[in-house]
Amino acid sequence: MKERILSEAERLFWRYGVRSVTMDDIARQLGISKKTIYQHFSDKEQILYQVIQDKISTDVTEMQCVVSETSNPIEEMLIVLEMMQKHQDQLSPNLVMDVKRHYPQAFTLFREHMDRHILKSLLENIQKGISLGLYRPDINPAILARMRVEQIELAFNNDFFPTSEYSMIDVQRELIHHFVRGMLTEQGFTIYNQYVNLYNHDVQENKADTSGLATLSAE
Amino acid sequence: MKERILSEAERLFWRYGVRSVTMDDIARQLGISKKTIYQHFSDKEQILYQVIQDKISTDVTEMQCVVSETSNPIEEMLIVLEMMQKHQDQLSPNLVMDVKRHYPQAFTLFREHMDRHILKSLLENIQKGISLGLYRPDINPAILARMRVEQIELAFNNDFFPTSEYSMIDVQRELIHHFVRGMLTEQGFTIYNQYVNLYNHDVQENKADTSGLATLSAE
Repeated sequence: MKERILSEAERLFWRYGVRSVTMDDIARQLGISKKTIYQHFSDKEQILYQVIQDKISTDVTEMQCVVSETSNPIEEMLIVLEMMQKHQDQLSPNLVMDVKRHYPQAFTLFREHMDRHILKSLLENIQKGISLGLYRPDINPAILARMRVEQIELAFNNDFFPTSEYSMIDVQRELIHHFVRGMLTEQGFTIYNQYVNLYNHDVQENKADTSGLATLSAE
Repeated sequence: MKERILSEAERLFWRYGVRSVTMDDIARQLGISKKTIYQHFSDKEQILYQVIQDKISTDVTEMQCVVSETSNPIEEMLIVLEMMQKHQDQLSPNLVMDVKRHYPQAFTLFREHMDRHILKSLLENIQKGISLGLYRPDINPAILARMRVEQIELAFNNDFFPTSEYSMIDVQRELIHHFVRGMLTEQGFTIYNQYVNLYNHDVQENKADTSGLATLSAE
């Protein structure tokens, strides 16, 4: 039952934001009583906390898979964007700011995840890119990785990018491509352009999957 | 007298941060009594407010001069860095965060300046770069200009870039070069590389001035 509550709460939070979803809504959707929910969780914030914790574990695993499946750091950066794009229609654009403003304890989990796993995987990505000659050798990986972490949160900030004017995924796409391009060497640009052309081709043919990306190699 | 107080306060704040400078320090440096200061200002925060307001006016004028003197948007972006570099030894690295945390009213001035003048001049820079064929035509100027504004503040943030590990100017340099490179077209890279080579040459010859930059033209 605990798992069912978490999974339904996640779906509702992601789609409608946290503030507008009540314990009643969750109970109604599952066809159970509120009392049953309270047997497992003391309040909505505790559910949210657990949902975010589970989501982070899934993300870390998914990211490890992506890294092991991709052939080079450029593809790795761009595939993260594809992952975001796939989930975007299930994601309320105001969710991250909603959590930041009203559920600070749960937001801390998200920040810790960014400061630990995301920062680390960005650092590794940049160092790998440099050693393969795809990113400039004169960049400072620590500074750029930190800046990119802050960029990810920035793209969720609806004070700066109001959801009435921007789609979150457009902002993330703009920033990721700009971030990668800013690091590329000439050799890196050759690889990058192959992905961009392939992706544009896929979009034109209305293919949703990105399996084609994996066929290109860094060498 | 008011002008003398403001000018000495600015020098002390910039060098030692705001918190550690007292009204007594300002009076002692000027060889006047504290009473004289209080005839012009009600407290230290009011002096700081005025200092920042004056600094912003000077910056806006200086920026307009830079824009009118530079030959293209790439040079314009890189010359801002030279300006920062010139003033860095007079600037306490913790100043911006000190003001943000302890003098919120004065910090608002800084934020308004960023959101108005800096954002506008970045937007113009990006649009000009696109129209000259130096920046990619497919970038979104509004998203990148906003991101760059947040980057400037980020580089001052000693939570992310502790002053024991990073010099503020190194962080700004890393981020500006990465920002510009992320927008460049092939034609843009040609111009950019000329400036970078010229600058490295200047550094090797221990020239502090950047007058040489103005001799290069976009065409």
